[in-house]
Amino acid sequence: MKKYAGYLIDLDGTVYNGTERIDAAVQFVKELNRLQLPYLFLTNNSTKHPKDVAKKLMEMDIQATEEQVFTTSMATAQYVKEHYPNKRIYPIGEEGLHKAIASADLTVAETDIDVVVMGLDREITYEKLAIGALAIRNGATFIATNGDVALPSERGFLPGTGSIISVLSVTTGVEPKFIGKPEAIIVEQALAVLGTKKEDTLMIGDNYDTDILAGINAGIDALLVLTGVTTKEDLTAIDVKPTYTIDSLTEWKL
Amino acid sequence: MKKYAGYLIDLDGTVYNGTERIDAAVQFVKELNRLQLPYLFLTNNSTKHPKDVAKKLMEMDIQATEEQVFTTSMATAQYVKEHYPNKRIYPIGEEGLHKAIASADLTVAETDIDVVVMGLDREITYEKLAIGALAIRNGATFIATNGDVALPSERGFLPGTGSIISVLSVTTGVEPKFIGKPEAIIVEQALAVLGTKKEDTLMIGDNYDTDILAGINAGIDALLVLTGVTTKEDLTAIDVKPTYTIDSLTEWKL
Repeated sequence: MKKYAGYLIDLDGTVYNGTERIDAAVQFVKELNRLQLPYLFLTNNSTKHPKDVAKKLMEMDIQATEEQVFTTSMATAQYVKEHYPNKRIYPIGEEGLHKAIASADLTVAETDIDVVVMGLDREITYEKLAIGALAIRNGATFIATNGDVALPSERGFLPGTGSIISVLSVTTGVEPKFIGKPEAIIVEQALAVLGTKKEDTLMIGDNYDTDILAGINAGIDALLVLTGVTTKEDLTAIDVKPTYTIDSLTEWKL
Repeated sequence: MKKYAGYLIDLDGTVYNGTERIDAAVQFVKELNRLQLPYLFLTNNSTKHPKDVAKKLMEMDIQATEEQVFTTSMATAQYVKEHYPNKRIYPIGEEGLHKAIASADLTVAETDIDVVVMGLDREITYEKLAIGALAIRNGATFIATNGDVALPSERGFLPGTGSIISVLSVTTGVEPKFIGKPEAIIVEQALAVLGTKKEDTLMIGDNYDTDILAGINAGIDALLVLTGVTTKEDLTAIDVKPTYTIDSLTEWKL
């Protein structure tokens, strides 16, 4: 095993499962801290503010400050700021997206919209979708925080961001630009925050289709841990394997 | 031109455009009445009750009783009643769908759902989508009133039924059974109401992709009138032509 200087770590399925922490991950993060290795939690959850994510982690005894959480809403706001400066943004989403847009000093508007930015919105209304659809038909750019079609919950799999945004893509015929995992964009932005080089950074996650592909797409090494979505059997059908695959983070020597 | 014993007539683009009646269609319907030829207005609008549709038509001087309007919600309720008797139905839609389900004496339920029936719902909420998605994942049948992705309005094209239902199809991976035009189902049910034979009935509409294909799929003759969506240019790229194509209903001799 190679020694890495920085770590990007997925949340659900990697450090906890729903409301239950994964003990091997708790120990792993403690060890990162002991060795003073920098890390960032990388999540496709667009609805939460990093402060709330950090609070949940701390309650599970997983060391995390607000600054150590990087959400797809933050990546999206940053991307919009870089590529569409001084444009009029119409965000459809929850607190996590709205706060990220506000923190990036972007101009929010409901008329003469240049960019429609959409994440998961469990307060979705037909009127929000109508405003978004009309803007995209009028030429506005369409950007989505992530494409996950299902949202794990105690009730089962609920509609995820990728299914809600399909209202806009299906009605307009315009596919959005995706920012979150498995896109390289969120990883590249996270690397800029973390401050480590591509070749010295490891992406750790439980989901091949999001976490591992994000690492592969961004050109960094990726470690699949079999504590969540992807199983050993799933991997047999996959051509581009993760750099490493382990059953539990206890197996990883820092 | 062949003489037909019964007529199925589309609404928007065929007898009116938005709030403006099409004079040639008004005269055409008057002539149908003078000759006592039976007709039925056939609409993919799942939100309205037939009484309200008839009222709108009468205000435009287009002769229509409640019984002469057949909506995709009525076709859907009838289809569910025939194929899923005594099952528990979860309808997502507006008044037109809810009243049609109630009129068909179907059992509406929010738990232990056997069939999810979805139409356009401009009061859509995440919770309705969540209930529908969980039910379909648990094996419930998924039926949709129609697949139109855009809804014409004075503001422009708003999200249509087909785009809203994509939330459920994308998140579950299950495609719904469609009932409205261009499916044959709605035409066959309308024929049963109208009481004329397939070979003696003409489908009239302005939209090749819905009205004309519905006629073709059901095996009845179809008349395209160029007062709405489909243009003469569109037709050049189409293999299976409408039985007839005319610029205006004044050209049609009953």
